Amino acid sequence: MKNMSRRQKFVKVDVNMTPQDLIGKKRDGKRFSADEINSFISGVCDGAWADYQTSALIMACYINGLDADEQTALTEAMLHSGDVLDFSDIDAPKADKHSTGGVGDKTSMIIAPLVAACGVAVPMISGRGLGHTGGTLDKLESIAGYDVNLSIAEFRKIIKKCGFAMTGQTSEIAPADRKIYALRDATATVAYIPFIVASIMSKKLAEGLDALVLDVKTGSGAFMQRFEDAQALARALVETGNRFNVRSVAVISDMNEPLGEYVGNALEIYECVKILRGESSEKMRPTLELSVELAARMLLLCGVAGTIQDSKFKIQNALASGAALEKFRENVELQKGDALICDNTDDLLSENLIEIEINSQKSGFVEQVDAASIGAAVGAIGGGRMRAENSIDHAVGFRLHAKIGDEIKSGAPLGVLYCRDENQAHQISEKLRNAYKIGEEKPQILELVKEIVS
Amino acid sequence: MKNMSRRQKFVKVDVNMTPQDLIGKKRDGKRFSADEINSFISGVCDGAWADYQTSALIMACYINGLDADEQTALTEAMLHSGDVLDFSDIDAPKADKHSTGGVGDKTSMIIAPLVAACGVAVPMISGRGLGHTGGTLDKLESIAGYDVNLSIAEFRKIIKKCGFAMTGQTSEIAPADRKIYALRDATATVAYIPFIVASIMSKKLAEGLDALVLDVKTGSGAFMQRFEDAQALARALVETGNRFNVRSVAVISDMNEPLGEYVGNALEIYECVKILRGESSEKMRPTLELSVELAARMLLLCGVAGTIQDSKFKIQNALASGAALEKFRENVELQKGDALICDNTDDLLSENLIEIEINSQKSGFVEQVDAASIGAAVGAIGGGRMRAENSIDHAVGFRLHAKIGDEIKSGAPLGVLYCRDENQAHQISEKLRNAYKIGEEKPQILELVKEIVS
Repeated sequence: MKNMSRRQKFVKVDVNMTPQDLIGKKRDGKRFSADEINSFISGVCDGAWADYQTSALIMACYINGLDADEQTALTEAMLHSGDVLDFSDIDAPKADKHSTGGVGDKTSMIIAPLVAACGVAVPMISGRGLGHTGGTLDKLESIAGYDVNLSIAEFRKIIKKCGFAMTGQTSEIAPADRKIYALRDATATVAYIPFIVASIMSKKLAEGLDALVLDVKTGSGAFMQRFEDAQALARALVETGNRFNVRSVAVISDMNEPLGEYVGNALEIYECVKILRGESSEKMRPTLELSVELAARMLLLCGVAGTIQDSKFKIQNALASGAALEKFRENVELQKGDALICDNTDDLLSENLIEIEINSQKSGFVEQVDAASIGAAVGAIGGGRMRAENSIDHAVGFRLHAKIGDEIKSGAPLGVLYCRDENQAHQISEKLRNAYKIGEEKPQILELVKEIVS
Repeated sequence: MKNMSRRQKFVKVDVNMTPQDLIGKKRDGKRFSADEINSFISGVCDGAWADYQTSALIMACYINGLDADEQTALTEAMLHSGDVLDFSDIDAPKADKHSTGGVGDKTSMIIAPLVAACGVAVPMISGRGLGHTGGTLDKLESIAGYDVNLSIAEFRKIIKKCGFAMTGQTSEIAPADRKIYALRDATATVAYIPFIVASIMSKKLAEGLDALVLDVKTGSGAFMQRFEDAQALARALVETGNRFNVRSVAVISDMNEPLGEYVGNALEIYECVKILRGESSEKMRPTLELSVELAARMLLLCGVAGTIQDSKFKIQNALASGAALEKFRENVELQKGDALICDNTDDLLSENLIEIEINSQKSGFVEQVDAASIGAAVGAIGGGRMRAENSIDHAVGFRLHAKIGDEIKSGAPLGVLYCRDENQAHQISEKLRNAYKIGEEKPQILELVKEIVS
C-alpha cells in the first residue's frame, strides 16, 4: 500500500518541549500551537510518548478542552501521521459517506452502488463492528468469498471498473488514530467532540475525496443520545471537512429504534439486496429513505445534480432501472464474492438456524424499541463482538415485526430471532422482549431525517 | 522482610466498577468513596489497571481535585498496599523526621543520633537523591562500607542496640506509591498536594511511629517555592498524620539557599560529623540550628520533654556531652561502616579531587544563592543523578564561602568546587557563579525556621 500512495509526513518541528511540558501546559488549561500538537502526534507514532503520557494528555484535553484551531490541528496531525490517498487519476468526482454508528444501519451497501450508478466514484474504507453496533466489513463478509482486504492497487482498480469499492482500514491510514482510539476506549475519554472529529476526519480525509456526507445518529441506540450533542458533533464534522477543502454536509438521523427490518450481518445484506432489487418491504422503508437522502446529498455536493429534488430523482432512477443492482453485482464479482446472492437472495439466509418468535405480553402501541438492547442481544449470541479480536457469527440476528407506532395485540410477534439453538434463544429472548415498551396511546412518530447541517 | 512484619491487606471490595467507570466519575468531577479508592489502588497493585488508565485517573484527580476524605482514603489505601511495620516490642517511643527535600539538607544524620541519645527510637527509612536534591542513602554510602540495605530483622536489631537505624525503602513498603510516583513523574502530576501527602505519609505511616516531624522546605531551591503552598502542604501532612494517630508537627524552613556549608554527599557527611563533634563552622550554623529545632520537636511530641525549651536543652546536652557523636559512631559500626571517620573527619575528603575557587566578579552583598542551580551543578558532575538508575560520585561537591547577606569583594571566593578535573570545572563554574546574585544593599536576612504547623 505504501508504494501506491502519497505519504505527506509532517515536518517534525523541534519545539523543544518534553511530554511533561506539553502535558503540564494542557493540565493548566493553556492552548496548544499546531507545532505542539504535531510534536505530540509525532511522539505518539514514533514511541517517544509512552502510552501513560498520551492518556494523561488526552484526559487533560478532555477536561480542559481543545478549541476549534486545536481540533483542526489535531485532525491534520493525525491525518498526516499516515498515508493520504490520491485518486486524481480517476476522472469522476469522489465522495463517501460516514455514519457515527447505529443498529441495523446498513445504508453503505445501498448508497455506494446508487451513487456509483450516477457517475460518482466511492472509495469507501470501513470498519468492523464493536459493542452493540455493527460494522460494514462484517456485513460484507456475510457474502461468501467477498474480500475486504484489498491492496490500494486493487481498491483503485475496482473503483475504476465499477465506480466503487469497499475495503478495510489499513495500518497506513492515520495510524495515530488507532493508537489514540484504543487509549481513549480504555480511559473513558471517547465521548469528546474534538477527539471524535479528529478520529473520523483523519481517516475520511485520507480517502482523497471531493465530498463527504456524514450520517450523525441520535437517539437511544446512538453514540450521541441527545439531539443537541448530535447537532454539535455534526457542525464540528462539517466545519472540519470544509476547512480541509472536502465539501461536507451532515444528516442528523434518528436512531431511537433499529434502522429498517433486520439486525444481523447476513440479514442486513439480505435487506440491502431486497431494496436494490426493488423488493423492499414496508419495514425496510426507513433504510431506503435514509439511503436515498444520503446518496442524494453526495450527488448534490459533487455537482452531479443541481437541486436536492433533481438529485433524488437521479437516485430513484438508478434504483428503479436496476442500474444500482448491476453496480452492486459488478462490485461483488470484482471483490471475489458470490454474486449469485443478487438473484437468489434467500442464499443469504442460513438453513442451520432456528427461528423463535418473540411475542408481546400485552396489547397496545409500540412506544419504544431500544436499539442498543437489540444490538447487544444479537451481539451476545455471536452476531457482534465485545472485543476487537472476537470472531463473529454472520448468520444470526433479529427481524423486527413491530416498530415504533405500530399497534400490537398480546401474543402477537414483536419480532423473530434467528439463532443457533434453544440455548441462545433462552439467553436473549427476554432481553429482546424488554427492548419493546408497549403503551396505551399511539406515540408520536419520529422523523427519520431530523436535520441537515451544511 | 515479609515474615517480620504485619501486612494489613485491605479487603478488596467489589464495587463492581471498571477502571473506565472510575475514571469517568472523576473526569466528571464526582467524589470517590473509600471503597472506590481501595479498588483503584488494589487494581494498580495487582495489574488490573493498566498504566495508561492509572495516569488518566491521576490527571483527572489533579485537575478536578480530591477532597480531605479522598486524600485520607488514598493515603490509607497506599499505606495498606504493603507491609506496615510494628515496633511495639521496642519500649522507647518511636519518632521520625521527613523532609520534602532541598540542597545541602543533611539534618537526618544529626537528628537521628541526637534524638536517640535522648531516649527516642528512630526507625528511619529514607530515599535516594533525584534531580537537584540529594538523598540520605547516597550521603550515608559516602561512608566506606555503610549498609543501607538492611533486612527488617537487622533494622530492628540495630534500633534496639543504638536507638536508631537508617535503611532504604523496600518493595514491601507502600508498593502502590512507587508505581504511582513513577507515573506522576512522567505525566506532570507530581505537584498536587493530596498526591504528595499520600506519597509521603503512606511510607512514613508504615514505620510504626508514635510521632512524626515534617520539615517542609520553601523557597527557590524547594519543591514548594511559594510559602503559601508550603503552608498548605504542611497543614495537609500534619492533619493526615494526626488522623492516623501519629502525633505530627511540621516545621516550614527556608530553602532559598543551600543549607549549611557543603553540598555533595561525602562533604555533607563531613559537615554532620563536624557538627556532632562540636566543631561546626559559622557557615554550618543553620544546619545545626535546623537539626536542633527538628530534633527538639520530635522529643516534645514523644513526651520526653514538657516544653520546647526543655526539649532543646536536652538536645543541646546530647550534643555537648558527645552522647550524640557516640550514638552515631555506634550506628556506623552496626551498619558496617568505617567508624574511624568519626575521629578522622578528613578521611571523608577524597585526595583525588581538585579544588577550584569560584570568585565573585563584582563587589557587594550576596542577595541570592540559587539552591536549585547549585544542586543541579553538583549533580551534573556526578554528585547527583538525573535518572533513578544513574550511579553517583560521592566525593564531588561545593563548599559555600559566601551566603545570603554576606559582603563580598570582587575577586574574593564565593565558594570552592571539589571536582575530578578541569573539564568538570569548566562545565559548571559559570553556573555556580551565576547562582550568586550580588547586589549593592545588604538584603534582609531570611528566617531559617519560618513557621511551626501543629
